[in-house]
Amino acid sequence: MRLRKKQWAKPELEKDPKVIFNPQDYPGKWHECFGNHNPIHLELGCGRGRFISRLAEMNQEINYIAVDLYDELLVYVLRKANELKLNNLRIIPMNIKNLAGIFEQGEIERLYLNFSTPWPSRRHHRRRLTYPDFLKMYQRVLKKGSEIWFKTDDEPLFKDSLGYFAMTGFQEQFKTYDLYAGGCSAEAMTEYEEKFHSQGIKIKFAVFSN
Amino acid sequence: MRLRKKQWAKPELEKDPKVIFNPQDYPGKWHECFGNHNPIHLELGCGRGRFISRLAEMNQEINYIAVDLYDELLVYVLRKANELKLNNLRIIPMNIKNLAGIFEQGEIERLYLNFSTPWPSRRHHRRRLTYPDFLKMYQRVLKKGSEIWFKTDDEPLFKDSLGYFAMTGFQEQFKTYDLYAGGCSAEAMTEYEEKFHSQGIKIKFAVFSN
Repeated sequence: MRLRKKQWAKPELEKDPKVIFNPQDYPGKWHECFGNHNPIHLELGCGRGRFISRLAEMNQEINYIAVDLYDELLVYVLRKANELKLNNLRIIPMNIKNLAGIFEQGEIERLYLNFSTPWPSRRHHRRRLTYPDFLKMYQRVLKKGSEIWFKTDDEPLFKDSLGYFAMTGFQEQFKTYDLYAGGCSAEAMTEYEEKFHSQGIKIKFAVFSN
Repeated sequence: MRLRKKQWAKPELEKDPKVIFNPQDYPGKWHECFGNHNPIHLELGCGRGRFISRLAEMNQEINYIAVDLYDELLVYVLRKANELKLNNLRIIPMNIKNLAGIFEQGEIERLYLNFSTPWPSRRHHRRRLTYPDFLKMYQRVLKKGSEIWFKTDDEPLFKDSLGYFAMTGFQEQFKTYDLYAGGCSAEAMTEYEEKFHSQGIKIKFAVFSN
C-alpha cells in the first residue's frame, strides 16, 4: 500500500487509550486490557480496518486486536472504532515480527490474515506473513485448536502458503480459489477485497486449524 | 435417511464408554468426561459421522460430540472413532429437542448443522433444526461469540434459515450458494455432501455467530 506521510496521525493515535504503544507490557494481561474474559481475535495487517471494525461491531462478545505498522493506516481504524463506539477493539502499531513478545502462549483464539503483501520475488519470500517462520510464531500465541483465516487475491502466494501451512503442522479445514464464485456474500470485507472482487479478481480463501 | 432396523446396533453402542446414554447427568461436566479443558464442538444430526470423525482426527485439541437419534447410524460413528483411535469424540443418541437439558450455558464453542432434513411442507417447518425455537435453544448452550456452521443442499431450507438466524439475533458472517463453485476443497465432507457435490448439486454454506 502506498502511503503519504501524515504528520498528524501519530499524535491522534497517542491520545486514545484504544491504541496500545507498549504491547510488550501486556503478555497474559490482554483480558485486563479489555476488562473481560471474552476470546481475543487478531488481525495482522489490518490496513484501514474496515474488516476488523465490522467484525467487532457484529460480535460484541469477541475482543479484537488490529495490528499494522503504519500510523497512516491505523488512524482510520481508530476513527472507525470511535465512530462505531467499539469497546471491544484495540489497535497495536507494531512490526508483526515482534508478535511473540506481546502475547502469552495460547492467548489468541483466532488470527485473520487478509491480503498481506505477496512478495513475489523468491528472495523476499521470507517476508510473507505466511512464511513458516511467521507461522511458527503464530502457533505459539494461538490457542491449540483455534484457526487462522487466510484471504488473498494472489494465486502464487496462496499456493505457496498452502505448503507453508502444511509443513508447519497446521490442518487445512477448507480452501477455495474463488470465494465469491458461488454467490458468496461476506458481511465483513476488507478494502482490498471489495476492490478486487468488483474488478472480477478471484479471492482465494482458506481456513487452517492449529 | 431411510434406515433398516439393526438389532445389533444398540448392544454394540452400549458396550462402549464413548457413547453417552445418560447425557442429562453431564451439564457442566463435559470437560470431566473428556478429561481435559479443550473446547467442545457439537454436530447435530451427525449421520454416519464421516464429517465429525475427520474433524476429530485433524483437530486433536478440540473435543467433539456427535448427536443423532438413530443407533443404526451412530454405530458407524463409533466404529470410525475406534478405527481412528479418537479419544476426543463422544456420541450421544438422543432427540435434539432435549439439548438444553444436557449442556450448561455456554458450554459449547461451535455447532455444526450439516444437511439436516429440509421439511419442505409449511406445517413441518418447526421441525427444521434451524427453526427459531431450535436456534434459541442453541443460543443457551453456545458460548457467546461462538459460531454455527450450517451446510445444506436444499435452497428453500437455506433461504428460510437465513431468516431464522437473523430473527433470533445471530450475526451472519458469510454465506455462499455454491460452496464448491470456486474450486473449494473441504477436508471434512459429510456423506451427503460428497454425494450431492458429485451429482453437481450446489452446496449452500453459511457461518453465523452468536
